[in-house]
Amino acid sequence: MAIRNIKLTVLYDGSEYHGWQIQPGLRTIQAALTEAIQEFIDVEVRVFGASRTDAGVSALGQVALVQIDSAIPVENLAKVITHRLPPEIAVAEAVEVPEGFDLIGAVKSKLYRYTIFIGQLRPVMQIKHCWHLPQKLDIAAMAQAGAMLVGKKDFKSFASAADKRQTSVRTIFRCDVSRDDDWVYIDVEGDSFLYNMVRNIVGTLVEVGSGRQKPEKISEILEAKDRTAAGPIAPAAGLCLMWIKY
Amino acid sequence: MAIRNIKLTVLYDGSEYHGWQIQPGLRTIQAALTEAIQEFIDVEVRVFGASRTDAGVSALGQVALVQIDSAIPVENLAKVITHRLPPEIAVAEAVEVPEGFDLIGAVKSKLYRYTIFIGQLRPVMQIKHCWHLPQKLDIAAMAQAGAMLVGKKDFKSFASAADKRQTSVRTIFRCDVSRDDDWVYIDVEGDSFLYNMVRNIVGTLVEVGSGRQKPEKISEILEAKDRTAAGPIAPAAGLCLMWIKY
Repeated sequence: MAIRNIKLTVLYDGSEYHGWQIQPGLRTIQAALTEAIQEFIDVEVRVFGASRTDAGVSALGQVALVQIDSAIPVENLAKVITHRLPPEIAVAEAVEVPEGFDLIGAVKSKLYRYTIFIGQLRPVMQIKHCWHLPQKLDIAAMAQAGAMLVGKKDFKSFASAADKRQTSVRTIFRCDVSRDDDWVYIDVEGDSFLYNMVRNIVGTLVEVGSGRQKPEKISEILEAKDRTAAGPIAPAAGLCLMWIKY
Repeated sequence: MAIRNIKLTVLYDGSEYHGWQIQPGLRTIQAALTEAIQEFIDVEVRVFGASRTDAGVSALGQVALVQIDSAIPVENLAKVITHRLPPEIAVAEAVEVPEGFDLIGAVKSKLYRYTIFIGQLRPVMQIKHCWHLPQKLDIAAMAQAGAMLVGKKDFKSFASAADKRQTSVRTIFRCDVSRDDDWVYIDVEGDSFLYNMVRNIVGTLVEVGSGRQKPEKISEILEAKDRTAAGPIAPAAGLCLMWIKY
């Protein structure tokens, strides 16, 4: 049996999980996926993820990579794995990729969507997948602020201090704010993201939408290169990794 | 302070709760609501519900009744209680009703909605609020079968054996089956329901939709007055109590 490199598209409701990454004694997506695949693979399975989503964050298009030495045809793998996963996790697609496929380095862009509910009444059925902010938000001002984040810039002000990567320069392709009834969506597409970057952007855009900051403040925040210049972090529940393009 | 009778409209995501009714050591909606109200009421609070929803069943319009001896204006009560509730539960409205208001006897009709997802890919974000049945369903046949349930009839065949009520005659005002993309909805409105009646109806309609039974079989099932004549019970997750009319 030939060992094959398999790229998986993974969906999960992350609200009851301690994030993607395996942590001893905690329920994580990576651990659940590893266990499900291990059930029909004899050698030790290692699953890699393209994004380390945080506790409470969901995904409709996480990408994972695993080596599989099973005779199961690749077109059946998504079903076989999903069948063994908890109900909150599924594999949408499995495709074979060449040896040496660079799961993180080959990423062209990623889209994160953040969902806010601004109605008065708590949305009990969606409460684990949104930020409930029962107040008025100036969507036009938020969109104006979001547009100022687009481009290749140093996003140090939007990175949590825990981020130890060498450079904080990233490219944001778009940062769109839209509204459908009482639901507000912030879509951020970029080449890669710093730790908590989207949630820090959302918290800052909400400061603008609430009228506590002017949209023009974004330039100052970017220039400061200091986390304390930006707004507070938005809760994890509203964040969802929509897709990753290669 | 005058003691007032307050009628509450209650919403909840019931997926992580052991149903409405208080049970020692278990997390229930009635217990959570009682605790929340008890926080600002000195005497012992007792909360009554119009429907005893089962474990895993949700509600967007459960109705509850409670006596409150607080000076809080009734128009503020919904917010005051919701603020003290867990995130999966909310009170949409609180209104004062006369002493002797008959919470169960005065019900004119109730609507339950059952949600089925027939797409292939597991809907991870909604999996706790639907029945995932990745197969074809003949919606027209299900609608035809549903229509045969409308009227004042003996629904003994659709009542779980645990139902010990004197009569199993109930009136169903409508039983509509509709489809929106891969989502199938079964809306059942009636004057009152036997134990597990909606879930047993749904299980039977799915037998019809899958082609395992003809729609005409419904008459035979009703005539049999025997639970074993109907189809298997549908999972709790898909059921939601939409509203109760007085």
